[in-house]
Amino acid sequence: MAIVLAGNQYGKAQTRLVRLTRNGARHTVQDLTVSTMLAGDLADSHLTGDNTNVLPTDSQKNAVYAFAAEHGVGQIEQFGLRLARYFGTSQPAITRARVYLEEHRWRRLGPHSFQRDGAETRTAAVTVDGAGEWVVSGLTGLVLLNSTDSEFVGFATDRYTTLPEATDRILATAVDARWRHAAADPDTDWADSHAGVRGALVHGFVQTYSRSLQQTLYEMGQAVLAERPEVAEIRLSLPNRHHLPVDLAPFGLPNADEVFLPTDRPYGLIEGTLTRDDAPPAGPAW
Amino acid sequence: MAIVLAGNQYGKAQTRLVRLTRNGARHTVQDLTVSTMLAGDLADSHLTGDNTNVLPTDSQKNAVYAFAAEHGVGQIEQFGLRLARYFGTSQPAITRARVYLEEHRWRRLGPHSFQRDGAETRTAAVTVDGAGEWVVSGLTGLVLLNSTDSEFVGFATDRYTTLPEATDRILATAVDARWRHAAADPDTDWADSHAGVRGALVHGFVQTYSRSLQQTLYEMGQAVLAERPEVAEIRLSLPNRHHLPVDLAPFGLPNADEVFLPTDRPYGLIEGTLTRDDAPPAGPAW
Amino acid sequence: MAIVLAGNQYGKAQTRLVRLTRNGARHTVQDLTVSTMLAGDLADSHLTGDNTNVLPTDSQKNAVYAFAAEHGVGQIEQFGLRLARYFGTSQPAITRARVYLEEHRWRRLGPHSFQRDGAETRTAAVTVDGAGEWVVSGLTGLVLLNSTDSEFVGFATDRYTTLPEATDRILATAVDARWRHAAADPDTDWADSHAGVRGALVHGFVQTYSRSLQQTLYEMGQAVLAERPEVAEIRLSLPNRHHLPVDLAPFGLPNADEVFLPTDRPYGLIEGTLTRDDAPPAGPAW
Amino acid sequence: MAIVLAGNQYGKAQTRLVRLTRNGARHTVQDLTVSTMLAGDLADSHLTGDNTNVLPTDSQKNAVYAFAAEHGVGQIEQFGLRLARYFGTSQPAITRARVYLEEHRWRRLGPHSFQRDGAETRTAAVTVDGAGEWVVSGLTGLVLLNSTDSEFVGFATDRYTTLPEATDRILATAVDARWRHAAADPDTDWADSHAGVRGALVHGFVQTYSRSLQQTLYEMGQAVLAERPEVAEIRLSLPNRHHLPVDLAPFGLPNADEVFLPTDRPYGLIEGTLTRDDAPPAGPAW
Repeated sequence: MAIVLAGNQYGKAQTRLVRLTRNGARHTVQDLTVSTMLAGDLADSHLTGDNTNVLPTDSQKNAVYAFAAEHGVGQIEQFGLRLARYFGTSQPAITRARVYLEEHRWRRLGPHSFQRDGAETRTAAVTVDGAGEWVVSGLTGLVLLNSTDSEFVGFATDRYTTLPEATDRILATAVDARWRHAAADPDTDWADSHAGVRGALVHGFVQTYSRSLQQTLYEMGQAVLAERPEVAEIRLSLPNRHHLPVDLAPFGLPNADEVFLPTDRPYGLIEGTLTRDDAPPAGPAW
Repeated sequence: MAIVLAGNQYGKAQTRLVRLTRNGARHTVQDLTVSTMLAGDLADSHLTGDNTNVLPTDSQKNAVYAFAAEHGVGQIEQFGLRLARYFGTSQPAITRARVYLEEHRWRRLGPHSFQRDGAETRTAAVTVDGAGEWVVSGLTGLVLLNSTDSEFVGFATDRYTTLPEATDRILATAVDARWRHAAADPDTDWADSHAGVRGALVHGFVQTYSRSLQQTLYEMGQAVLAERPEVAEIRLSLPNRHHLPVDLAPFGLPNADEVFLPTDRPYGLIEGTLTRDDAPPAGPAW
Repeated sequence: MAIVLAGNQYGKAQTRLVRLTRNGARHTVQDLTVSTMLAGDLADSHLTGDNTNVLPTDSQKNAVYAFAAEHGVGQIEQFGLRLARYFGTSQPAITRARVYLEEHRWRRLGPHSFQRDGAETRTAAVTVDGAGEWVVSGLTGLVLLNSTDSEFVGFATDRYTTLPEATDRILATAVDARWRHAAADPDTDWADSHAGVRGALVHGFVQTYSRSLQQTLYEMGQAVLAERPEVAEIRLSLPNRHHLPVDLAPFGLPNADEVFLPTDRPYGLIEGTLTRDDAPPAGPAW
Repeated sequence: MAIVLAGNQYGKAQTRLVRLTRNGARHTVQDLTVSTMLAGDLADSHLTGDNTNVLPTDSQKNAVYAFAAEHGVGQIEQFGLRLARYFGTSQPAITRARVYLEEHRWRRLGPHSFQRDGAETRTAAVTVDGAGEWVVSGLTGLVLLNSTDSEFVGFATDRYTTLPEATDRILATAVDARWRHAAADPDTDWADSHAGVRGALVHGFVQTYSRSLQQTLYEMGQAVLAERPEVAEIRLSLPNRHHLPVDLAPFGLPNADEVFLPTDRPYGLIEGTLTRDDAPPAGPAW
């Protein structure tokens, strides 16, 4: 029996960056959180403390700022590709570079004035290794609610089942979606692609008469794959943010499905992946 | 020497409520977090464990749901007044009732579909005692940023001062504002009042050429009092969310005030109160 | 009618500091979060943007580090007094300085090795103005639970009361306590005082047969004032962390008060102040 | 091209449970957060909204409480196995059940009195499918610090490297460790195993003269595999909680590595897996 160092990677997590672009009097602002993770010939740093192949995480952080200065940010997929290519090629020992990016949204109030726009975050995960490049786009924190057109009936039961069937309930979720692009194509219009996927997700949620959150998840994913040929695969993780009807009978009041207790936890969690049957292999994309 | 029980109060914190209104096919949704705090002849519960005068906090929670069912929510100031009056009059031992309300915003996507609208929260604090009623409206989580028209020069120094003067900096803050109404007037158009105050705050931030966050705070508060006669006093607590220019010189790059590190902490904190010289006394409003 | 700038203050919030003391091979580590708030002749900075009297919050942060280097930290009350006196006297425009300190606990594992010790935090709030000095010590995040010897019966009811009486329940809380010292006496053994108050609080919670959290609060506060003559006043804010017995009847199981759902919110909140009848006035201590 | 539903699973996340055991006057308390995730023949619920095979997540929650009542909790690995076996066998459509458990620690203060013991959490992830059973134990939130015996020198550089070599630095991390048991052996003494692994991790951190956090990670993992034959594989994710020496030169003070700014983010992140070369395959354990 011997002890073996299997997979390992390292990097700098959560580098915060605000990139201002001064286009005359009309500024634009981009607000990112960037994480980098590198893998390669790093066993010696673990086994003997020999750091010859270890580019400091501090240097990785510096590169984020320097690249933002030199090249601007642009679309986060582009920015991630630029960074991942750099780490993957500048360091002989590094064979795989991953860059995770979150973009926090600001709404324009004036030529140089902005308001933070909620909890929704655009994300990207870019991977570069010797075999190719992979881009996964995404979003988190998009909280949606339908106040009707949702039911949950005909389910399996066991000796612990007490849930009554619901023929009209609130359905609410916080969308966590990530989708893999068929190709890390430099000509992709990433902004248009993101807006299109986001629109399909929202439309899929809003338009579906829901028999379960599973069904809604599938409709959302299907809408994305049907409308966006550049997307090869989508993964959705949807918490079911339960809204419990409050029992008003003790107070002599009816509750015509109007008064609800939204609960924090526990919550249902529905996860599913949709893909094309001719999708290229995912490789190390995820 | 004797030990004395001085001020005391109790209540139920953070009751979550979603109130749906079904107006035919077009629903509306309101999403609130409500806290209640009662004071009065409660010494015995502390001194002897005699609970005769203690209305359970569970009953307070129930009242929130029952009132929402019976009367709807409407504007949170109204809902808070209705609750505070109830607690203040239904229980002989209770001499002061406070209700704190937070309203979480949803944006309409369709007749029965909604999207959570960010981190900004509308607040109200309503106090009712034997002498009167007080309403404090407010908002939190409104994050604003000006990318120019902000400087900080001519400040005091001590032996620990290393900060250089800044003639063009990013100014960003998360507005925490609470304003006291001159009267808890039932005819107040609370929605219009809130929108007006919010607009004055945003306009005050956006339009001010800032010599300090103190000055911006004052301009914001002054705009509110100048435009909204129903407001007697406003309290602002403004964190200075520092954006540090990144030193790019080691990489041979200029930083023309375009690449910033936004820091989480420490942060500057500026607090100020503006009032009218003829404002009625605040009593127990705060 | 004129608009008036009433109270205002400013400072640096949440400066993080780790102070290492190298006593030969045996190191000690102190881990603090420090906030400073200054008040005085600061109206011009609000009204005209004249910053002549404004010592930058960045300088306040620097002073925290410099004082830690020069003098060490010692007990946080001492460190706070040293800082507050400095700000209150070095700046002619400043008439009141407040310093808030949190100390995060580490447990020793070896001569230079340590483990973070939980969520409990020791706090201090020190105020210095022309009239004197005030010290408020405290703690937060001390979570306590009694699994029996707690009841809640004989309470008031209204039409919304559905809570059954409980003759044996779990009582749990997260202690948030602050206590004012009768004097900011430089000879106070702050460590001993803090340990004594903490012990009285814990003992008061553990030993009390509780008829309500109000009664427990009082017993805790009374124990502090009875045992610690240096304490003039104590303020306690105790959330009632409800543990709901789970109804197991649908599964054909008894629940002999053994299976509970601990809820996050809503929660009861009990607040009370105990003082001595001969306590010196609190002044600006709180 | 067709759209395919690939992997999917669902369950109930974060069911909170406190299990009290009344052993005469001497009580014990266990405090858990439990999540369940089921997979199997669930495509119809996605594709057509047919819920025939969907056991409600509410029933899963109920089972957690019922099992705690009937069988007690015991070691979380046992409790997880019991739950996972139930879900995996009671529902014909379910082919894989995963149960994630977190145990929050309480320290005894008396026969029925307890204090929450910090941020460290014991974890387990149990997977049951038709082919077998897998148990992964773990811990999170164990924050460790060495104030010396840590260096970082001889590292790779690029044009963005500005980090100086450090021959004596603070090394701090929050251990996130998960280890796979070679077998889900019912005779395992899970408590002893957990204590042993935890001890090896702490000892590995404390005793290692660190040339990098990578090396420390390896020493920690190696200690576990060397001392605990029941462990087949361990995965460690170690944030590098940077403590930056504060530059005191502007204040005319030396900084003999005694005054530090601990930063929240960005942070280094080191991840590594150690395994035995004769470890059984991991299957669906992770």
